[in-house]
Amino acid sequence: MEIINRLLNYKDLNIVQNTDWFNFSLDSVLLSNFVSINKTTKNIMDFCTGNAPIPLILSTKTNSNIIGVELQKEVYELAKKSVEINNLQNRIQILNMNIKDLPKYYETDTFDVITCNPPFFKVNSDSKFNKNDIKTVARHEIELNLGDIFSIARKLLKNNGVISIVHRPDRLIEIIETMRKNNIEPKKVRFVYPKIHSDCNIILIEGSKNGNPGLKILPPLYVHDNDGKYLEEIEEMFK
Amino acid sequence: MEIINRLLNYKDLNIVQNTDWFNFSLDSVLLSNFVSINKTTKNIMDFCTGNAPIPLILSTKTNSNIIGVELQKEVYELAKKSVEINNLQNRIQILNMNIKDLPKYYETDTFDVITCNPPFFKVNSDSKFNKNDIKTVARHEIELNLGDIFSIARKLLKNNGVISIVHRPDRLIEIIETMRKNNIEPKKVRFVYPKIHSDCNIILIEGSKNGNPGLKILPPLYVHDNDGKYLEEIEEMFK
Repeated sequence: MEIINRLLNYKDLNIVQNTDWFNFSLDSVLLSNFVSINKTTKNIMDFCTGNAPIPLILSTKTNSNIIGVELQKEVYELAKKSVEINNLQNRIQILNMNIKDLPKYYETDTFDVITCNPPFFKVNSDSKFNKNDIKTVARHEIELNLGDIFSIARKLLKNNGVISIVHRPDRLIEIIETMRKNNIEPKKVRFVYPKIHSDCNIILIEGSKNGNPGLKILPPLYVHDNDGKYLEEIEEMFK
Repeated sequence: MEIINRLLNYKDLNIVQNTDWFNFSLDSVLLSNFVSINKTTKNIMDFCTGNAPIPLILSTKTNSNIIGVELQKEVYELAKKSVEINNLQNRIQILNMNIKDLPKYYETDTFDVITCNPPFFKVNSDSKFNKNDIKTVARHEIELNLGDIFSIARKLLKNNGVISIVHRPDRLIEIIETMRKNNIEPKKVRFVYPKIHSDCNIILIEGSKNGNPGLKILPPLYVHDNDGKYLEEIEEMFK
């Protein structure tokens, strides 16, 4: 079922969702608040944009042009609607495209910032699932893997442009290695913990194209207090 | 000046220090409490043992044989004295040796656990310092670098044996890469923060020889409260 949900509480921002597929997740909110955007940022691209939560949230933080790219036609339609109900068509453009095709349409060294909340799960030869299922494609590396993401980012990013992604901790090492293979130097990382005394379950990591080595590990971010309520820093992100 | 200091408060453990060189540091205490030791652990080696804080603390946690290796003769003498004043000669052996020479004396696949609090600073062609200075050798990668540490560990460790090290966050990526180059798979990491809202300034990381991929990111560890006092978890380590 298609519904409209509130995305940010006080910023008059809504999002169109299909309850059969997935809701926008905390991951997108975390990434939108982690990525390095400043006054010189002109062009932002969001890979795997889904129903466009990241472009929508970023539109409250910057006046840059934002392009969201979504492979799946049905999800792309949601993203378009989400942009339209917020009247952000002049700020956010949504493309229905495989990100592997982007280098045909965009010149190299074009973007200041790329964000990506990618499929998290590796696909093995014995993985069993319906490859036509919308949820499956969004969650598993069927159409796109880490190598694709960073090799395309390397082409599209300006020199010293950054790519910020959200992922799971068990993929951290592979992410770092794949970034560096593509001359993207990890510059900052933040580890997110569901609550105090828990192991990390979400990582945020940003790398800079042709950047100098030197990784900063930001303060840890806790999501919930012991009663399961969002902690203040997270509450702030939803305002 | 040579003095005897209390190492752990209630465990009747002391350490011999030379105040002209350096005091044992929090790093060694953190590492001793991070490393994976269990009932099957028989042989432990501590690279760059200094005045032996890690062997001393580990002796309170395990009945395993512990060997500390120290390159610098003067520091080795302190380590020997530290072991003797605690009457731990039957449990801890101290060697005055370059760890690069260890594979001549020990068979491969001998140790269950290796610990290391190594020199932290990279040496560049324009680094200026007195290479004969005891502090300099302890702090800079003059005699030993990350590549040496992990290639020797790979030889000495049993299959699935672990090496645990303490280091600085800006070297994290290099550590991960150097571990993997030597078939040591990073398995757990803990990020230490001097206080709340600060960036991480100490990392603890453990890898397993020929281990399967899958990194666990443990809960963050804060050292001080806002008044500069040790927090409870740290206090416990000094008991």
